[in-house]
Amino acid sequence: MKLYYVTGNELKIKLAKKIFSKYGIEVIQNDMDPPEIQSLDCKKVADFSSSYAANILNERVLKNDSGLFIDALNGFPGALSKFAEDTIKSEGYIKLLKGEKNRNCHWEEVLSFAEPNSPPISFTSITKGKIAEEVHEGRGYDFDKIFIPENDTRTFSEMTEEEQINCFNTNAYEKLAEYLKKNY
Amino acid sequence: MKLYYVTGNELKIKLAKKIFSKYGIEVIQNDMDPPEIQSLDCKKVADFSSSYAANILNERVLKNDSGLFIDALNGFPGALSKFAEDTIKSEGYIKLLKGEKNRNCHWEEVLSFAEPNSPPISFTSITKGKIAEEVHEGRGYDFDKIFIPENDTRTFSEMTEEEQINCFNTNAYEKLAEYLKKNY
Repeated sequence: MKLYYVTGNELKIKLAKKIFSKYGIEVIQNDMDPPEIQSLDCKKVADFSSSYAANILNERVLKNDSGLFIDALNGFPGALSKFAEDTIKSEGYIKLLKGEKNRNCHWEEVLSFAEPNSPPISFTSITKGKIAEEVHEGRGYDFDKIFIPENDTRTFSEMTEEEQINCFNTNAYEKLAEYLKKNY
Repeated sequence: MKLYYVTGNELKIKLAKKIFSKYGIEVIQNDMDPPEIQSLDCKKVADFSSSYAANILNERVLKNDSGLFIDALNGFPGALSKFAEDTIKSEGYIKLLKGEKNRNCHWEEVLSFAEPNSPPISFTSITKGKIAEEVHEGRGYDFDKIFIPENDTRTFSEMTEEEQINCFNTNAYEKLAEYLKKNY
């Protein structure tokens, strides 16, 4: 079985190839840029884009979508994280949570699989964490400077890239690979 | 000439009918719900949706998109205003701007016109204002409780609905009507 993973992210391709190859599934990168719809919900965003790409490419397609969900902010910024990162930046989250005791948040990654003219199916990985009390400078994106993963006291910006990658839950990939193995 | 205005907003339909009828253009409401793409830019969002709807309906279509742009927050929340309103609410803007002297902002409305299989054309109305120092309770949406239009000292929430409507710049409608009259 052959899957076209529609993403420009090399790390995602590497991860998908590593996991799916164990199940005899070939992953091929595709650099199509399908539209992403407005929603806080990563599943809705990924499902729309995977279906769109599957219909255009006439192939079996994978599309992921991810975002930061902060409990005390009703899930903001969710699937729209990159726009918050571009505008209010990590300092914005700190201001929004000033005096707030509930710092719980999670990073969500949805992996959606679609075939032409069929409803998509998706699986979700959740990485729990807390929002730091202040911005911690270091490597990585703005988000990395405020996210403290569960069972650690450091923000991602204070870790090596490898340490950070190991903190992320990626079980959506295994769950999807098992589903495909069973049903195709 | 006949235009299908793709919106569920009765006030927008009323306004469009009032202005376009002066130019001999008939406006018909259509309740299609085309996808809206992720962007801070109302023009990009409106243009994608108007083209999409024009191609599906095979008709000439109008689609609007609007949002709040706060200067000191790099234009946040822009075309994604409704998601900020649903999550961080008006209190969120006040927190993000705490201690900030530059309270300038504007409300932008883009009106996009599309024909099947042609690039869309759009016009923009800008209503300037300032973000209040605190939330002012009253009528209206969350946004109305913090937006003080230029040449006034009250937030929209402290005005009657009619007073608020009169504060909005709607010249995108006239500009588009003139363009259509000239070119069709």
